[in-house]
Amino acid sequence: MTTTWVRFKQGDAVKFGTLEGDTIAVYSGDMFNNPQATGESVKLADVKLTTPCSPSKMILLWNNFYSLAKKIAEKKGKEKPDIPEEPLWMLKPPTAFIADGETVIKPNTYAGKVVYEGELGIVIGKRCKEVSEAEAKDYIFGYTCSNDVTAGELLMKDPTFAQWTRAKGFDTFGSFGPGIVSGIDNPDSLVVKTILNGVERQNYPVADMIFRPHKLVAMLSNDMTLEPGDIISCGTSLGVGSMKPGSTVEVIIDGVGHLSNKFEAA
Amino acid sequence: MTTTWVRFKQGDAVKFGTLEGDTIAVYSGDMFNNPQATGESVKLADVKLTTPCSPSKMILLWNNFYSLAKKIAEKKGKEKPDIPEEPLWMLKPPTAFIADGETVIKPNTYAGKVVYEGELGIVIGKRCKEVSEAEAKDYIFGYTCSNDVTAGELLMKDPTFAQWTRAKGFDTFGSFGPGIVSGIDNPDSLVVKTILNGVERQNYPVADMIFRPHKLVAMLSNDMTLEPGDIISCGTSLGVGSMKPGSTVEVIIDGVGHLSNKFEAA
Repeated sequence: MTTTWVRFKQGDAVKFGTLEGDTIAVYSGDMFNNPQATGESVKLADVKLTTPCSPSKMILLWNNFYSLAKKIAEKKGKEKPDIPEEPLWMLKPPTAFIADGETVIKPNTYAGKVVYEGELGIVIGKRCKEVSEAEAKDYIFGYTCSNDVTAGELLMKDPTFAQWTRAKGFDTFGSFGPGIVSGIDNPDSLVVKTILNGVERQNYPVADMIFRPHKLVAMLSNDMTLEPGDIISCGTSLGVGSMKPGSTVEVIIDGVGHLSNKFEAA
Repeated sequence: MTTTWVRFKQGDAVKFGTLEGDTIAVYSGDMFNNPQATGESVKLADVKLTTPCSPSKMILLWNNFYSLAKKIAEKKGKEKPDIPEEPLWMLKPPTAFIADGETVIKPNTYAGKVVYEGELGIVIGKRCKEVSEAEAKDYIFGYTCSNDVTAGELLMKDPTFAQWTRAKGFDTFGSFGPGIVSGIDNPDSLVVKTILNGVERQNYPVADMIFRPHKLVAMLSNDMTLEPGDIISCGTSLGVGSMKPGSTVEVIIDGVGHLSNKFEAA
């Protein structure tokens, strides 16, 4: 049995609870540490969802899918794909985070293409440091849908320094949600789809990951302490593409959620 | 007139105030928004300082000094130094932050050299987005000392992806403080010194920056919203070097502070 946790605004307060059909059962306390059912409930249609948590850090994986690595190698005429020995990653700033239904805004200062990257997000539930792959699942609260929006033409604009963080760090470039689904024991069976203006553009299995979710949590917890609410966005695979202003982009992971955002120019 | 703001632990509470000599005048409310003097004071010697704020993001500059760019070009046999057209930056995760007097710990999983980088830190005071260089100073709360500790041999370990964030993101690799000094109108006149085990290793003027503090705030505020308490660590210049376990490293900026940390193996 899985449970979908959401946060929402009610007046000035941000509340949270579990989503069942069109109703949210409201909880109090700490979502990650023994939350208490209040007995209260609200209709989903009557509230505005926010991001389902406030990560102190969002970790973004690069080159984490065999299929994409293979395609890039072919494009470059390389005999073998580059398969990393360790997770390769960067961070997205909190000012980038937006919720389901909010709008990704193309910045004033950037004229190039903006691309979607549909990804699985792992949400940490307990502080962890140097945990093993076998222990990792005890530290995972659940999974969410993530769109790691990227200003693609900034990446290699300066030949001396790849601008990964900047390209992925603009305000509104980090959409995730709508909720967090707990109770998924085998994330490796999930499939990530991205739909642009109604047309499927990505459809790839988590099983094709170079570092799968439990392994990722273990290896990243060697690099630094992971905190409750931190998110690991697991990297993307084939089918990344650019969005025109006015587009709608959806990241759909069956059993996890359906994240939808518009994209507009500033 | 400048004012030094510090935070400290008293029992379980984190409090803040202004440091005058060996005494802290305690304030209440929000350090960045009309803090109120309580009339209470405590002796500096009786409390433990924490980091002077809790940045939602710490932005780290790369290649921001003419002298260092020149030296690197000479080392590589390049005719001209690489002078970036825009700030080149990455982020440090909050789990890396430590205060004056705390210990930088070499991670278990990394066997290479760990280097200090003494830097000036700009602390944002008001939310800002797309501000001009002339407006920038109204959004700066003050300045602090920063040691952007880096696992140097990780940077280029993977030939396909420079691991900047990881190399700078280990727990305890982001020391800053001891306080934040407000009331500095001309940061360009400051000088950053780094002392390793009593020997001066860095001594460079902020005036040699490619993007100076007010300009940095303006340009970075085009990339994303800067929040109160966010820190821009302005990059380092000549004299970076590695630390042996047992070392003491100090970053001293006259008029801003004296940040001291030990470095130890895990």
